[in-house]
Amino acid sequence: MNAGQGGLGPPIRTTQIHRGVIVNLRSSDYRRPDGTVVTREVMDHPGAVVIVPVEDDHVLLVRQPREAVEEFTLELPAGKLDAPGEDPLDCARRELAEEVGRAAATWRDMGGFYTAPAILTEFIHCFMATDLSEVTGVAADEDEAIEIVEWPLRRLGDAIDSVRDAKTLIGLLRLERELRAGA
Amino acid sequence: MNAGQGGLGPPIRTTQIHRGVIVNLRSSDYRRPDGTVVTREVMDHPGAVVIVPVEDDHVLLVRQPREAVEEFTLELPAGKLDAPGEDPLDCARRELAEEVGRAAATWRDMGGFYTAPAILTEFIHCFMATDLSEVTGVAADEDEAIEIVEWPLRRLGDAIDSVRDAKTLIGLLRLERELRAGA
Repeated sequence: MNAGQGGLGPPIRTTQIHRGVIVNLRSSDYRRPDGTVVTREVMDHPGAVVIVPVEDDHVLLVRQPREAVEEFTLELPAGKLDAPGEDPLDCARRELAEEVGRAAATWRDMGGFYTAPAILTEFIHCFMATDLSEVTGVAADEDEAIEIVEWPLRRLGDAIDSVRDAKTLIGLLRLERELRAGA
Repeated sequence: MNAGQGGLGPPIRTTQIHRGVIVNLRSSDYRRPDGTVVTREVMDHPGAVVIVPVEDDHVLLVRQPREAVEEFTLELPAGKLDAPGEDPLDCARRELAEEVGRAAATWRDMGGFYTAPAILTEFIHCFMATDLSEVTGVAADEDEAIEIVEWPLRRLGDAIDSVRDAKTLIGLLRLERELRAGA
């Protein structure tokens, strides 16, 4: 028994519905291995990264306005790939600099996941970043209103109990798991 | 310091872009506390549940085709609310019966999270379901092609290392955490 994912073929017919700022929406028909044809509305996304930056005795989080859910949310630094083919690590380096003003000498791949595999193609690559140093002069994206939060590792459980963003929960749960394994 | 989420107001202007099968897509303008007006493309979703069903020495997973990402994925049972106002626990009972043919005598709220707060309103409520019994005669949704997988708890770490669905990772990481706390 394993969790391995069998492949499914690409769509046999696609109609574009909307070309958006972040996602494109399409309706596609797929033929399943048993021959059945199903229609799915799919949002195309280039993919993204989420970073777990650990510095001294804290993890760096960002608090930012998320208009879609009408809340300021506490999240790990993250961002989307410039294009589907971009090296996720290049993207992670850029986002770490833009969002929290840091460079990392050590990077480690913590695995990845689909955000919402029923409707969205987005795959998020998760990296731990350590041996951090400050960088300056990096221009953040237009209209980003980000507050950096240095969250103490000794209170990591409190963050896990209260953050409400899926990718951040995964990153912090994985971090807690690794800290425990290393303790 | 806390992870608390400050509120942001509702949109001041909205244009519907597409009314879809699962999500509606709109473009909305929001006024931030500092007066700035930003435009966001937002996908409206009624919300969803994910269930961690523990039975004897295993957790019940489902393997199913996810056309959007062109894979069969291994996931916890889940499903969307019939409407934004539906009681999430009612939804969880229904999905547990439909997807894995079980009823649960004990339910516990494990918290919830936004799937992708930058673009999607979906909030997923996570429940642990225990004291399970089999139910019969429940009709699964049309075109669901679901295989039930009884995953041994002693190999929970293997599932955490290999599943690629965000809500499933969160549910399994939380389960591992609780099993450890109870051990």
